[in-house]
Amino acid sequence: MSDKTIPYKIYLEENEMPRQWYNVRADMKNKPAPLLHPKTHQPMKAEELEAVFCKELVKQELDDTTAYIDIPEEIRNFYKMYRPSPLVRAYCLEERLQTPAKIYYKFEGNNTSGSHKLNSAIAQAYYAKQQGLKGVTTETGAGQWGTALSMACSYFGLDCNVYMVKVSYEQKPFRREVMRTYGASVTPSPSETTEVGKRILEAHPGTSGSLGCAISEAVEAATAKEGYRYVLGSVLTQVLLHQSIIGLETKTALDKYGITPDIIIGCAGGGSNLGGLISPFMGEKLRGEKDYHFIAVEPASCPSLTRGRYAYDFCDTGMVCPLAKMYTLGSGFIPSANHAGGLRYHGMSSVLSQLYDDGLMEARSVVQTEVFEAAEQFARVEGILPAPESSHAIRVAIDEAMKCKETGEEKTIVFGLTGTGYFDMMAYEKFHNGEMADYVPTDEDLKQGFDGLPQIG
Amino acid sequence: MSDKTIPYKIYLEENEMPRQWYNVRADMKNKPAPLLHPKTHQPMKAEELEAVFCKELVKQELDDTTAYIDIPEEIRNFYKMYRPSPLVRAYCLEERLQTPAKIYYKFEGNNTSGSHKLNSAIAQAYYAKQQGLKGVTTETGAGQWGTALSMACSYFGLDCNVYMVKVSYEQKPFRREVMRTYGASVTPSPSETTEVGKRILEAHPGTSGSLGCAISEAVEAATAKEGYRYVLGSVLTQVLLHQSIIGLETKTALDKYGITPDIIIGCAGGGSNLGGLISPFMGEKLRGEKDYHFIAVEPASCPSLTRGRYAYDFCDTGMVCPLAKMYTLGSGFIPSANHAGGLRYHGMSSVLSQLYDDGLMEARSVVQTEVFEAAEQFARVEGILPAPESSHAIRVAIDEAMKCKETGEEKTIVFGLTGTGYFDMMAYEKFHNGEMADYVPTDEDLKQGFDGLPQIG
Repeated sequence: MSDKTIPYKIYLEENEMPRQWYNVRADMKNKPAPLLHPKTHQPMKAEELEAVFCKELVKQELDDTTAYIDIPEEIRNFYKMYRPSPLVRAYCLEERLQTPAKIYYKFEGNNTSGSHKLNSAIAQAYYAKQQGLKGVTTETGAGQWGTALSMACSYFGLDCNVYMVKVSYEQKPFRREVMRTYGASVTPSPSETTEVGKRILEAHPGTSGSLGCAISEAVEAATAKEGYRYVLGSVLTQVLLHQSIIGLETKTALDKYGITPDIIIGCAGGGSNLGGLISPFMGEKLRGEKDYHFIAVEPASCPSLTRGRYAYDFCDTGMVCPLAKMYTLGSGFIPSANHAGGLRYHGMSSVLSQLYDDGLMEARSVVQTEVFEAAEQFARVEGILPAPESSHAIRVAIDEAMKCKETGEEKTIVFGLTGTGYFDMMAYEKFHNGEMADYVPTDEDLKQGFDGLPQIG
Repeated sequence: MSDKTIPYKIYLEENEMPRQWYNVRADMKNKPAPLLHPKTHQPMKAEELEAVFCKELVKQELDDTTAYIDIPEEIRNFYKMYRPSPLVRAYCLEERLQTPAKIYYKFEGNNTSGSHKLNSAIAQAYYAKQQGLKGVTTETGAGQWGTALSMACSYFGLDCNVYMVKVSYEQKPFRREVMRTYGASVTPSPSETTEVGKRILEAHPGTSGSLGCAISEAVEAATAKEGYRYVLGSVLTQVLLHQSIIGLETKTALDKYGITPDIIIGCAGGGSNLGGLISPFMGEKLRGEKDYHFIAVEPASCPSLTRGRYAYDFCDTGMVCPLAKMYTLGSGFIPSANHAGGLRYHGMSSVLSQLYDDGLMEARSVVQTEVFEAAEQFARVEGILPAPESSHAIRVAIDEAMKCKETGEEKTIVFGLTGTGYFDMMAYEKFHNGEMADYVPTDEDLKQGFDGLPQIG
């Protein structure tokens, strides 16, 4: 199909790696709305945020004018252990699909955390260390973020307390043990270690926990202990900033070979991967230099962009975190047991929400059986066994490539392959055994979530 | 500790990748002894081997004079999907150990099979396809080889039947599902699908199986069905040939930066990784061009080199495969439940056995708790979570680096990091919980295995 003048895998040299993150907000005319205090509904001040988050990270969270922010040398050195990540030309997939489209994917799974989460974990751990903290707390659902953070904390000698949703703690012992290998303490949530945990256990004995509850416990643990702060792996704008390394590397690699993508695709849960991948390209679009077609892919079971409302909402179920303006299904919305745990979040990054609301990108939702079909097709020809989350992007990349086959267009498609599915084999097993169901919430289901939205201003 | 003029990860360009495998036997004065027929004890003829193995692979197995053998283009293209693998400078480990030694590792885990096994699997699948076969059969214990072969067969559209030791089939469902994702049929062994399986089930109802039994079933299945052959992931000389890609890439990367290793270390089970890594360096040593200190590391629980006998023995417990002259504990030796399943083999590649017998390399055995200590130490600073097998090499690399600390010598140490431990978290859990024991066979234990050695000549 092609002459293969482009290598299968484009690796940048170390000296070509980005030395600065890119802050897409600097180029946005319509800035994302500010975080609001959950009680007063006034914009959060830096001092208020610093009680929960590291000082430097608060600065990054609030800075919507500085386009480029230096990556500290220690972080760049850590990046060098597993980055630059390869930009892969999917020759074998193209061949199998018999499409004239040229497909590339940026693969973030070649590290032990198994995903892109490490890019922000190491930055957050670094700033915590710089501030002289003893440790950090966080929550984890499927476990990718917790694993990444435990690796980062291990590197800097920080204590790492992970509240892991109890059902995952029990059903995903392997993830738990990876975190323990990196010296993290992992507590099944809800637990007796926090007041909020105790209250929940009293009210719901035998509960298997939820991400919202784990967040509340992690925030309480961070603020209750001297020398600790809370860190979060997605949704926040600082996370998108750190994840811009994905997009910057992708752009450098493409530029090196004179390739201009037509379509850029990413899966979207809280937005960390998608935001990081598209940021520098979106910057060009915002500045009127180039145009790209961006596609956010979300599960049909948790369709915050495609069926949500653009409104202020709580970031957590416990309603202790600040309010963010975002596309949301309501913090009370409980998504069905979709196997892409990393995409089961009721809201969406406020940056991506604003860009979407401004008509700068498209969103699509897909059902999980079709996602696993794409995952398996991809694995068989490209070798990599993808995470269910990442496979949402694969699904749409294949769909777009098949459209090219119909029209004969030689479009260049780039998608983000955020991670591997080694710890998701139970989901693959269900798929193989024909036991996987699809779930699409009814309008009535969604109404319940919307009814719980806070009334602002 | 160092000025870091060497990159953290040395990646070769695609055009620097080897175009030929290197056959170390060509440079050996004392050639490995020939395979013998299990019944007649006469050297196996090509025609006899071709009943079980693919024609071209038999040719490679028997060729001990051709130094370089072309890698077919299709195999090179597949290699490009996951190779060249990085040669990593372990700056962080050096820093943690405060050693003047310079440590490098060749990392083979960045592919879905999680290990170096794919290097030979794709070659064997290719030759099966070339011969017009419908499919191949094999056995797998821990599952790395089965996974690699299923990926390779999927790529070439070959049927892949894997006999998986029943206890692993049940305890490692994730591995099984990875193989199924790649379209392989996975049968718990012993099974009712073969005569030998039926016999064993009748004699030992409720048995959890063994590698020896699985081999016998796979061989029977291959010879009973039209258009099938049997393939094997280690021990055989053809496998070492394919795995020479590891050593060739390592050497090219080192040469590129003017680095000469003093010590080269690899874990040793059947010998596929160690043989592949050291081959081109050993070639230099055999030709008198350079000298290196090679160290084979094996588990103390299965010490074929350090405590075995150099004798003709069966390659399988079922005694249906040819006899090979090798360092062996006897095909009847049953190693304890060490967590490095890939190293639980009673014998050793005949090539490595001959080299060892000629005094060209050292062998050491280590106990598993010390191996897991090294694994965890490595993971925490280098990020990669290593497989228990690979961690044997890490253990000795750290030991050697600590000796350098004492003596002040700035030795250059290279070791093979064959794979990742994502599917070995049960073993890590045991280690974390202090439930891991060490086992070293007594001389009496070994005697039983030696007593079963066949009397040749």
